[in-house]
Amino acid sequence: MTHTHPIRVYYEDTDAAGLVYYANYLKFAERGRTEYLRALGFENSGLREMHGIAFVVRHLEADYLKPGFLDDALAVQTEILSLKKASFVMNQTIIRPQKNAAPDTLFDMQVTLACITMPGGKPTALPKSVYDVFSLHGASAA
Amino acid sequence: MTHTHPIRVYYEDTDAAGLVYYANYLKFAERGRTEYLRALGFENSGLREMHGIAFVVRHLEADYLKPGFLDDALAVQTEILSLKKASFVMNQTIIRPQKNAAPDTLFDMQVTLACITMPGGKPTALPKSVYDVFSLHGASAA
Amino acid sequence: MTHTHPIRVYYEDTDAAGLVYYANYLKFAERGRTEYLRALGFENSGLREMHGIAFVVRHLEADYLKPGFLDDALAVQTEILSLKKASFVMNQTIIRPQKNAAPDTLFDMQVTLACITMPGGKPTALPKSVYDVFSLHGASAA
Amino acid sequence: MTHTHPIRVYYEDTDAAGLVYYANYLKFAERGRTEYLRALGFENSGLREMHGIAFVVRHLEADYLKPGFLDDALAVQTEILSLKKASFVMNQTIIRPQKNAAPDTLFDMQVTLACITMPGGKPTALPKSVYDVFSLHGASAA
Repeated sequence: MTHTHPIRVYYEDTDAAGLVYYANYLKFAERGRTEYLRALGFENSGLREMHGIAFVVRHLEADYLKPGFLDDALAVQTEILSLKKASFVMNQTIIRPQKNAAPDTLFDMQVTLACITMPGGKPTALPKSVYDVFSLHGASAA
Repeated sequence: MTHTHPIRVYYEDTDAAGLVYYANYLKFAERGRTEYLRALGFENSGLREMHGIAFVVRHLEADYLKPGFLDDALAVQTEILSLKKASFVMNQTIIRPQKNAAPDTLFDMQVTLACITMPGGKPTALPKSVYDVFSLHGASAA
Repeated sequence: MTHTHPIRVYYEDTDAAGLVYYANYLKFAERGRTEYLRALGFENSGLREMHGIAFVVRHLEADYLKPGFLDDALAVQTEILSLKKASFVMNQTIIRPQKNAAPDTLFDMQVTLACITMPGGKPTALPKSVYDVFSLHGASAA
Repeated sequence: MTHTHPIRVYYEDTDAAGLVYYANYLKFAERGRTEYLRALGFENSGLREMHGIAFVVRHLEADYLKPGFLDDALAVQTEILSLKKASFVMNQTIIRPQKNAAPDTLFDMQVTLACITMPGGKPTALPKSVYDVFSLHGASAA
């Protein structure tokens, strides 16, 4: 399953080269991950308050393929690639849909997230409810 | 007394208009306030851990006078304008020093900060040690 | 007329005090202004390419009334307060709608924007098409 | 040769999990690259105005090893790993020096940068002056 979240590019996202600043694709990606989790029934604040956990990025590998520009209407596509007891890997692609043509792919990232205790910051297993839902949604990608 | 903190403008600070993005002057100003506090012996993390407080912005009034550009070497000038039991007002100016000329003033702000409990977020009096040091340094402006 | 634009609070918007970082309300406000302009038929990139202009902030006065938190669903309300040949003033309020209660108002700002040439950065009159549409929409506030 | 640039962590860099937000390490890294280039005699604004070029990120691979916290005094270490006609690879490490102990390594990244025309955005060879200086400094890593 692939989750899609729309992103609009504002001045705050661009830099003096006239392009989306490279670190801001990671912000867009995090919005996409957050909305995917929310669609699956999990909010960051709830994960912390009810489960005492948060997800943190451990590793990422990203390709910057084409630039984004002011006023672009982009989309973040997110899917779960693999799942372990205390971590998972997502693939995230940021595209610019085109009229009458295939979308431009601007950015492609594989990101590994680990589950940690909050507060404390120690590695811990994913809550069973999260694991089970991820397992269901990541199955098609396995 | 006026405290001065240097700021270099990077791509992250600029936008597609080729200028420093307007919200980022508030980041520069916060860096200046933080370094002023540190120079007076107070770190944000220490204020929280030892005194259970933080300072939050309640009000600000800002003039954007000239634009900042990529690679500019700027400076934030900070002084305490007035002091109450649970809040204080600072004046902050961001300048671009010039060779052989008076500096350009890019940004000028008056900002009111309140002391709150952390955690909790309730208004509270400034710690006496902070009040006394601010009082000493703000005296010339009173 | 008041334009409303939804904002979701992500980790990128918050800070170690657990609150929305104060400069980020200015980002939210700029998104609201941009979407209001877009709803009126004007995109920032189009203003630059077709009219050779951009709008820059000259002055702002802001009150921070209540904190915003991670996962909050906020809204930016924007209206044109007054209009001159080469500048205009907007009022922008950021609220947190409540179930079964009046919304919390987190942030309230009056912001003065000036029209400048791009490239060049010189003050210039608003394009007639923009002035006329603003005039129509700001009339109720005059 | 390794270039070192100091970074202080401010509220703007942290998030509601109490840690440095993951995208902000890329900002720190870009500051380190910029200061390394400046130390070698090249400013971003000068590269654009005199040579009509800019460097853009094409690929990165990053490990997040330990969290950064508010008020941390960090350092970005940057070295040139390899050099081609129109691109180069840098290794960047962000460390937290310790009193009486080896520094903590928070973040480690390999980043590939390409030279593009500005304006235009087309791939182009590095200016000879840049290539020659990089070649000299990257030689020990080859």
